[in-house]
Amino acid sequence: MNTIGFALRLTVFGSSHGPGVGSVLDGCPAGIPITAEMVQREVDLRKPAAGIGTARAEEDLVQVQSGLLEGKTTGAPIQFFIANKDTDSSKYQAFRATPRPGHADYPALVKYGKDHDIRGGGQFSGRMTAPLVAAGAVARSLLGTKGVRIAAYSQAIGKVVDDDVRSFSDIADNRFKYSTRAASHHVAALMEKEVLAASKEGDSVGGVVRCLVDGLPVGLGEPFFDTLDGELAKMMFAIPAVKGVEFGAGFRSARMRGSEHNDPFVMVGGEVRTETNHAGGILGGLSNGMPVDFSVAFKPTASISKEQRTVDLSKKEDTVITVQGRHDPCIVPRAVVVVEAAAALVIADLMLRGGFFAN
Amino acid sequence: MNTIGFALRLTVFGSSHGPGVGSVLDGCPAGIPITAEMVQREVDLRKPAAGIGTARAEEDLVQVQSGLLEGKTTGAPIQFFIANKDTDSSKYQAFRATPRPGHADYPALVKYGKDHDIRGGGQFSGRMTAPLVAAGAVARSLLGTKGVRIAAYSQAIGKVVDDDVRSFSDIADNRFKYSTRAASHHVAALMEKEVLAASKEGDSVGGVVRCLVDGLPVGLGEPFFDTLDGELAKMMFAIPAVKGVEFGAGFRSARMRGSEHNDPFVMVGGEVRTETNHAGGILGGLSNGMPVDFSVAFKPTASISKEQRTVDLSKKEDTVITVQGRHDPCIVPRAVVVVEAAAALVIADLMLRGGFFAN
Amino acid sequence: MNTIGFALRLTVFGSSHGPGVGSVLDGCPAGIPITAEMVQREVDLRKPAAGIGTARAEEDLVQVQSGLLEGKTTGAPIQFFIANKDTDSSKYQAFRATPRPGHADYPALVKYGKDHDIRGGGQFSGRMTAPLVAAGAVARSLLGTKGVRIAAYSQAIGKVVDDDVRSFSDIADNRFKYSTRAASHHVAALMEKEVLAASKEGDSVGGVVRCLVDGLPVGLGEPFFDTLDGELAKMMFAIPAVKGVEFGAGFRSARMRGSEHNDPFVMVGGEVRTETNHAGGILGGLSNGMPVDFSVAFKPTASISKEQRTVDLSKKEDTVITVQGRHDPCIVPRAVVVVEAAAALVIADLMLRGGFFAN
Amino acid sequence: MNTIGFALRLTVFGSSHGPGVGSVLDGCPAGIPITAEMVQREVDLRKPAAGIGTARAEEDLVQVQSGLLEGKTTGAPIQFFIANKDTDSSKYQAFRATPRPGHADYPALVKYGKDHDIRGGGQFSGRMTAPLVAAGAVARSLLGTKGVRIAAYSQAIGKVVDDDVRSFSDIADNRFKYSTRAASHHVAALMEKEVLAASKEGDSVGGVVRCLVDGLPVGLGEPFFDTLDGELAKMMFAIPAVKGVEFGAGFRSARMRGSEHNDPFVMVGGEVRTETNHAGGILGGLSNGMPVDFSVAFKPTASISKEQRTVDLSKKEDTVITVQGRHDPCIVPRAVVVVEAAAALVIADLMLRGGFFAN
Repeated sequence: MNTIGFALRLTVFGSSHGPGVGSVLDGCPAGIPITAEMVQREVDLRKPAAGIGTARAEEDLVQVQSGLLEGKTTGAPIQFFIANKDTDSSKYQAFRATPRPGHADYPALVKYGKDHDIRGGGQFSGRMTAPLVAAGAVARSLLGTKGVRIAAYSQAIGKVVDDDVRSFSDIADNRFKYSTRAASHHVAALMEKEVLAASKEGDSVGGVVRCLVDGLPVGLGEPFFDTLDGELAKMMFAIPAVKGVEFGAGFRSARMRGSEHNDPFVMVGGEVRTETNHAGGILGGLSNGMPVDFSVAFKPTASISKEQRTVDLSKKEDTVITVQGRHDPCIVPRAVVVVEAAAALVIADLMLRGGFFAN
Repeated sequence: MNTIGFALRLTVFGSSHGPGVGSVLDGCPAGIPITAEMVQREVDLRKPAAGIGTARAEEDLVQVQSGLLEGKTTGAPIQFFIANKDTDSSKYQAFRATPRPGHADYPALVKYGKDHDIRGGGQFSGRMTAPLVAAGAVARSLLGTKGVRIAAYSQAIGKVVDDDVRSFSDIADNRFKYSTRAASHHVAALMEKEVLAASKEGDSVGGVVRCLVDGLPVGLGEPFFDTLDGELAKMMFAIPAVKGVEFGAGFRSARMRGSEHNDPFVMVGGEVRTETNHAGGILGGLSNGMPVDFSVAFKPTASISKEQRTVDLSKKEDTVITVQGRHDPCIVPRAVVVVEAAAALVIADLMLRGGFFAN
Repeated sequence: MNTIGFALRLTVFGSSHGPGVGSVLDGCPAGIPITAEMVQREVDLRKPAAGIGTARAEEDLVQVQSGLLEGKTTGAPIQFFIANKDTDSSKYQAFRATPRPGHADYPALVKYGKDHDIRGGGQFSGRMTAPLVAAGAVARSLLGTKGVRIAAYSQAIGKVVDDDVRSFSDIADNRFKYSTRAASHHVAALMEKEVLAASKEGDSVGGVVRCLVDGLPVGLGEPFFDTLDGELAKMMFAIPAVKGVEFGAGFRSARMRGSEHNDPFVMVGGEVRTETNHAGGILGGLSNGMPVDFSVAFKPTASISKEQRTVDLSKKEDTVITVQGRHDPCIVPRAVVVVEAAAALVIADLMLRGGFFAN
Repeated sequence: MNTIGFALRLTVFGSSHGPGVGSVLDGCPAGIPITAEMVQREVDLRKPAAGIGTARAEEDLVQVQSGLLEGKTTGAPIQFFIANKDTDSSKYQAFRATPRPGHADYPALVKYGKDHDIRGGGQFSGRMTAPLVAAGAVARSLLGTKGVRIAAYSQAIGKVVDDDVRSFSDIADNRFKYSTRAASHHVAALMEKEVLAASKEGDSVGGVVRCLVDGLPVGLGEPFFDTLDGELAKMMFAIPAVKGVEFGAGFRSARMRGSEHNDPFVMVGGEVRTETNHAGGILGGLSNGMPVDFSVAFKPTASISKEQRTVDLSKKEDTVITVQGRHDPCIVPRAVVVVEAAAALVIADLMLRGGFFAN
């Protein structure tokens, strides 16, 4: 359903072409500093960049209608609402008969029937992540009170893969410097070229967002099932277009020997650390004090302007379709702040569950 | 915590070296055929194979103490208990001071303090998956009443990767024919060699389990957050040693163009199908009628007999450790039935949520 | 927290004197007829009546910002927002030091600290029930598709107790005919007098709301814990000022013999019925096909204009307080529609859980 | 379903005449002192008393199969199992056709169909409260570490009503001194006589259990929905035969004026207290520092040996039935420890949620 989280609970609502999209964040302790500006700043980072993003021009002005008073949370649920402005629903009715490949149209029509709101993808739209980012701003502020920081970047876009070793501060320092959300000037240029090449051909590309969480306490996670990795993964798969999630060495682990994969414990300045971080900061579903390090694979944007084969559901026959409309040739740059926000919400939830915010 | 699922809810309890391990499965409709033998057969598939598995000899005899009557479920919770027999806890006390690399020892000691049951890994042991498999047998029977079938195999062990195209029936027919859970005779031999080579060196290897779900109705999944992929992923990360989960083309999607990744819809015998299955049977978090196809990456077994570097928590200094005991040089073959059971539990839960078992 | 329900999930947000109050209702199937007018009509029934209600004049105009399209639900979450207009927060700051007797001020200040929004009672205000009633309108429409109807009335106000035997249709026919929500003209006059007498003295009175649910299927409820009575009771205690809930003979049962209390089963027109309904339509936590019959006790409104003794939290000494502001001398008439809406939400949730809406 | 609680989660399983009954308690912090003896002592208090209780002789020996190590909790789930010994199922098959008045037989048969385990009431049996009491022993120990104590007594049995003013220590001191669980020697004699009189006539009586919780912190409860009173009420209605729950003045509140009902705040020894406790220790769903005081109404035992009217479900006609078997003429004395345990579980859960056990 449209609620996630245990102690910090996020509910999203709205649809791509309805009155707007919004969210309710429940469980945030009272007294956490947050202003409308702090929320807006994060939501703005999700906007499409000129050149490489969609032409749909949404102001995405966030209204906060509950839970804040004089720049602080009150302990009551916090509600965000973002009106939809630049909607053009005319082109979507056709998809009721001829579902778009790669989109939720077909299974959604089977699930909800003729009353499904298909305009702009309805409740399956990537637009639903805007109020998630708004809520994430609160989670970030909450985490900040305990020194926990989160930073993500585009680790791959199409065939451009950034394999450089990057520390947390390296990533955090370059956070959102480039429109592609690359971690360096050099990679940014290559990624931009990759997006534009696809765009020019009426096509799209996917990519990988890598995210690091720094400053976590040890022991975060609630086994056997509510593990740190499991909770993060579930949240990430809610982001449209995600097809894979891995931690630390991830799928590479499968080809490693135990003697190579096991991260040796070492004392560093009186603290227990591991020399390597193949585990991605997680052992047995619990944080181990090293940065949590995970990667999220995004498929190429499903909407492309090339003609595609699909079926006509009423005639029960094969046909072709050309999807018009305004789309991002690559969703990855806009997804970076979404991954960060999603991670912040999960981490804050688990810290609340673990008693890390109790006085 | 130790409960997962919404309409079909699994609770696990026990520890590796306590009286036993068990589970409670709640929410299964009345009248589903299930016998102690059906449960035992699945649990036996989790046992280590001679030669490539651990020497710990557990009978794993499942007692069913609630919820069954005359070979059918009654609608009451179903409880399973598996006594621990072959336990040797003597070697584990040392790990309270010197946590094993790659294991949960260190974060668990921080989280639970000195009362943590560290014997055999306690509640973090892979042994917790035995009662999960028992419960999975009920889920399989429930799914069977609607024609839903699940089959998994070792797609990779160490550097042996099985890249052959395999249909559902291809996999299902060879299910559990080989001790490595490979999908063909040829690959089985290579994988066995890979495990034995690591074992001989006192080392371990990881691998990938691929799982297919066939016969699913369209529209399974409860967006925005309780997606089919998200629920499966969360469950998979509860299985010890899992480091990555991907659906369909997964991480390969990141390098694909939209025109290549989008699966064209086609009519086949009056049914809507897709020509390819890069989506892994999931669009917008909902099943689309194609087989759900996902892969789970396992790290190499953390317990190896080679000397490893760790820290002495009391002296706060670096030290070395040699982990004795009886371990699997590769956990992947035993994990195959666990992945299947875990998937069955998630799928059955979502089908119950979606009203697919209502009369 | 601020979410309740399992398959039909209600989240409330807002506060008495903030921008507004609202709710999100998630899990309602697609295709249920509901219009803004239907919602507004229910919310209007919660308004104070001239003469016996508060002078706070709220328009309570409901905005629906998600989940409806062309007069039907889409399957996406439904969101309601009601702006606060007639707020006067000036008098509330004093209560931070001198909490009002009978109100949540004192425990809320301890719980949330200085950032608690105390204006108008904040998130503890009876005003939070307005968006609950809005959501209840959807639940009523959903229940209507299966012939389930709900009707409540003021069974007691102060010392005026309505002990007449009343059938479901008797109650439903007089629903909301009188400003006191009495079930007959005769009782209405007595109750109005009782309220005005208290009001004149600057005092308040309590009362009892009795609620009946008609047309329920047999077997509603999810034991052992999610019983029909337990779920209704939990929801009722969320309504401010509720101090007791009983089903059927309720507390009178305690003084009855089994031979007197047990309702004999009888066949009536081919249907299984009970001759009496001491059980209030519930056996073993399940509906038994008879009307669910329960009563909810409301304490007198805590806000009275008489001087009251309290403490000064900063000086840690006894003091007195006179609560100004605009208050209902009796909350019971306005609570009747709230009890109905709350019951509708619980019943609809349990019907969804029980598969009663599946095709 | 069969799980309740949020941070401290109880799952019950089993049935009256199956292999046994049991429970799993999840979420208890590590290091809480608890032994099998402490658990057994509580469970023994639930046994029928000679003379006034059932003749079914169950040893009720509790096995703890998970979660304890050396007299302390480990942080893993705690599991209890109580084997059924003295079962006689022969008389129950008849009730499939002719459901017993006052029992769950009829709605359960409709809900679960022919596979419902009707023997001894199956999962609807009062016997399910035995493992609840076992789990309650852990909650009591947990609460004890923070000075929270719980005591209940039979406030009424049939027409014998104990209206004496009783303080917490008054009740706690006499806890379980008398077989009727009366609070004084004088009342105990009257209550015993009342039970025996009903028993002699083949009939049964109901009663009221009053429960007090002492030493609670202020601010316990999670509004808007997870209130202290709402959570307690839901749990109480899970106990078989409960028909009403009220807090403080409860239903009497309905007839009071606000000036009479509002409890004045006063400073007592530097602490904020209220002079009276009509609120039953709860304001706005939050504990206010006064003892929580609630009453639970029990109907008379449904099983009586008098002939009763019922229906024959197969023939669809009226008939009569005489329920044989061994039954308690009054369940109230045995329910007292169940109410205490149930309250302990709810309170401990809310204290965990509120962060009151965090270091």
